[in-house]
Amino acid sequence: MASQQQFMDYVEQHQEDFIDRLRRAVAIPSVSSDPNHRPDVFRMGEFLIDELKALGASVETRDPGKQDFHGQLTLDLPPVVLATVGDDPAKKTILVYGHYDVQPALKEDGWTTDPFVLVEDDKQRLIGRGSSDDKGPVLGWINVVEAHKKLGLEMPVNLKFCLEGMEESGSEGLEAIIEDEADKYFKDVDAVCISDNYWLGTTKPCLTYGLRGVSYFHLTVKGPAADLHSGVFGGTIHEPMTDLFALMSKLVQPDGKILVPGIYDQVRPVTSEEEATYQSIAFDLSDLQSAVGNKTNIHEDAISVLQHRWRFPSLSLHGVEGAFYNPGDKTVVPAQVVGKFSIRTVPDMEPKKITELVVKYVTDEFNKLNSKNTMVIKCSHDGNHWLSSPNHPNYVAAAKAVETVFNVKPDLTREGGSIPVTLCFQDALKKNVLLLPMGRGDDGAHSINEKLDRSNYVQGIKLLGVYLHEVSDVDLENKQ
Amino acid sequence: MASQQQFMDYVEQHQEDFIDRLRRAVAIPSVSSDPNHRPDVFRMGEFLIDELKALGASVETRDPGKQDFHGQLTLDLPPVVLATVGDDPAKKTILVYGHYDVQPALKEDGWTTDPFVLVEDDKQRLIGRGSSDDKGPVLGWINVVEAHKKLGLEMPVNLKFCLEGMEESGSEGLEAIIEDEADKYFKDVDAVCISDNYWLGTTKPCLTYGLRGVSYFHLTVKGPAADLHSGVFGGTIHEPMTDLFALMSKLVQPDGKILVPGIYDQVRPVTSEEEATYQSIAFDLSDLQSAVGNKTNIHEDAISVLQHRWRFPSLSLHGVEGAFYNPGDKTVVPAQVVGKFSIRTVPDMEPKKITELVVKYVTDEFNKLNSKNTMVIKCSHDGNHWLSSPNHPNYVAAAKAVETVFNVKPDLTREGGSIPVTLCFQDALKKNVLLLPMGRGDDGAHSINEKLDRSNYVQGIKLLGVYLHEVSDVDLENKQ
Ligand SMILES: [Zn+2]
Ligand SMILES: [Zn+2]
Ligand SMILES: [Zn+2]
Ligand SMILES: [Zn+2]
Repeated sequence: MASQQQFMDYVEQHQEDFIDRLRRAVAIPSVSSDPNHRPDVFRMGEFLIDELKALGASVETRDPGKQDFHGQLTLDLPPVVLATVGDDPAKKTILVYGHYDVQPALKEDGWTTDPFVLVEDDKQRLIGRGSSDDKGPVLGWINVVEAHKKLGLEMPVNLKFCLEGMEESGSEGLEAIIEDEADKYFKDVDAVCISDNYWLGTTKPCLTYGLRGVSYFHLTVKGPAADLHSGVFGGTIHEPMTDLFALMSKLVQPDGKILVPGIYDQVRPVTSEEEATYQSIAFDLSDLQSAVGNKTNIHEDAISVLQHRWRFPSLSLHGVEGAFYNPGDKTVVPAQVVGKFSIRTVPDMEPKKITELVVKYVTDEFNKLNSKNTMVIKCSHDGNHWLSSPNHPNYVAAAKAVETVFNVKPDLTREGGSIPVTLCFQDALKKNVLLLPMGRGDDGAHSINEKLDRSNYVQGIKLLGVYLHEVSDVDLENKQ
Repeated sequence: MASQQQFMDYVEQHQEDFIDRLRRAVAIPSVSSDPNHRPDVFRMGEFLIDELKALGASVETRDPGKQDFHGQLTLDLPPVVLATVGDDPAKKTILVYGHYDVQPALKEDGWTTDPFVLVEDDKQRLIGRGSSDDKGPVLGWINVVEAHKKLGLEMPVNLKFCLEGMEESGSEGLEAIIEDEADKYFKDVDAVCISDNYWLGTTKPCLTYGLRGVSYFHLTVKGPAADLHSGVFGGTIHEPMTDLFALMSKLVQPDGKILVPGIYDQVRPVTSEEEATYQSIAFDLSDLQSAVGNKTNIHEDAISVLQHRWRFPSLSLHGVEGAFYNPGDKTVVPAQVVGKFSIRTVPDMEPKKITELVVKYVTDEFNKLNSKNTMVIKCSHDGNHWLSSPNHPNYVAAAKAVETVFNVKPDLTREGGSIPVTLCFQDALKKNVLLLPMGRGDDGAHSINEKLDRSNYVQGIKLLGVYLHEVSDVDLENKQ
């Protein structure tokens, strides 16, 4: 406990140094989606390797190989950085994951300041691309190591890093490396902690123990051999767009209810125990409405909103490939159109079963249309949902750390989106995975003026360090 | 009759000269939609002015003004060329219309030969951009004048030309000029003839006496203030795409039946007299199927196909603006989407009434959705249908000319698309308008390898000339 306090004091006193480190990291525009910035992504990897080595970590890299960039060019993928701080067999080993690439950012997009120059505004917000997603958290772990080293404090656990440079672009090659290293580099890992998401709101820390999955579908309707003119052919042939709209309109109701039979049968019922967990969560309907920008919410109470975001499935129509999409008027009859939609999945929905249900339903509905066009429905991609337990010792340790640093019990949250690496670590390592966010819900991770509040950075560094202390004390084999 | 035969013989004997004139015209890439080719459009106008003047025509031009090219640049519009051959008050005055601009064409699009070099293949097809649409027909009229001049034959009518250079790009400025000149340059016009469409098939000439109109609609659904992530928001807000697909699926059935109440009440019934006119028309179901490339036809008999193309309304869904349209997967919830659809209209549908019916129906259906999104439905553009009569003396004269040149009675056809200038001339001049095509239905006017069969060009020149002789003999005031 004394060492925890010492650590926290050090962080409080040296926050300018840590902000300076973040400033140097933000200055490297490691935009993974832009081939022109690919050298910067590599440079950012080097920056982290140097920082880690300077703190005595042993560092290795793994090469994810080459990227086929939209069939236009071949790019080297930035390395997965593996680093180890400590290898005491008497200690637990905690694996932390983060990413060192960032979303694109241009001043012209509407940034108030240069996105790659970290500035602090009068509300003590550190503004810059990657400040919150995910350079702040990644440096958070490094700052923890530095603080211990400078204080001459022993690290409470062995710490392993897994840092990738392609998260914002699909984490190409990462899964294979994790699976490959599961019984090698990651062999002694006892638990995993990922800091790459956000508080639910702006005031209260949270631990995140669940994510929805996503199954993405392509519904193709093929009619004439080529696009036709609606004047000449309208009324004489089966138009693929008519069939597509008929089918896609039968997938989901305006109130969000999914119309594919059998989907809800697979959804785990809400227990009274689960219901109770929503009561204390800091979330209002107004939080949703301000995020959305108006009052187009379906549900009128905050708990329903959270449940429909976290633990009920949803179906969204995304668009149509092959149809007219520009402004203006065009009288084309598209020859082939591909409708895109996805289903957010929750326990206990199984991706394979979902695809079966969707394919059967859409095929049945298509047959009812009596169209001479042809229809193909396919799942283009599925990622399973993920659910851990806030009662797991890894979470209990994190909750204690939150109480120590913030003097409040964390909200126990789930998220509506997916973070595929979470499930990948859990499946490959068979260890508990904890999502422990540093930033706030309004950080604007993928938007203009991305920020990390100074207090979130400083308290976040404390949180990550204290978590390592707390997790060293729990029995991780006692899986509740 | 002797002079007609003399004229036809001359055309037969001088066909190489006429093809050479077409070759020189095709060599000018007068693509009106491409700013880089705008000078070529002007050059093509000059070419026609020179040819007309050389034949003794008096030529004037009208300037349609400037074009705002997608808000990016301002382009000069090519002139409307007005020319007069003869001003004998004892003769009728016939106005002919054509356009000297062409569709874009690139060798890379799949042309077998350079699109701007006219070549004749082994099936005696003259291949080149604009050969059929509409340089062949425009030169057809000029060739008629030349033949008479060379033969020392008097022209049977006074001939006026109205030639524009923007037809393939919306005829910007033309309507105002026609209206303005109605009681000036066009004051003495007795009838109008337009040669800018095609035979129904490939074997039999036709006269075209009807066109469908088109009313184009934009259906906008607006939800959240910005695009959202379906993981975070799916299931909690009213998604504009869901509402849009619900509404657009209620517009038309897969078998082409329009679901907007009241539309069919306005459609003029098929009389037995009209029904009879379809019997002799050279058109098979296989003609539709080969145009479409497969058997996705709704109707199983040729007459139903023609009626649904020509004289029944149709509704086509064209696309969605604001949604995801690229290949691949994207989990966006679009904030605002605009569905595009159009209705092909026929007698006695009135555009204003159609818009009223559509707006009422879509609004009613949207209200049933109980969505908190907002919806706006608007007619972005409407052009009325057009219907003349094959019994009008102008058509009787043309039918006689077809019999003289082709030894067959022409098919009496309508078309499913619209040619707005037709209605514009009829409304402005209050004179009969005849559509007298030169090319075949398979000329590929807007496709690669556009062609005009040598025989269509040569017989077409004869047809235009003989028509002028025939129309000089009928009583155009006797409007059947
Ligand atoms: Zn991230
Ligand atoms: Zn991110
Ligand atoms: Zn044309
Ligand atoms: Zn055209």
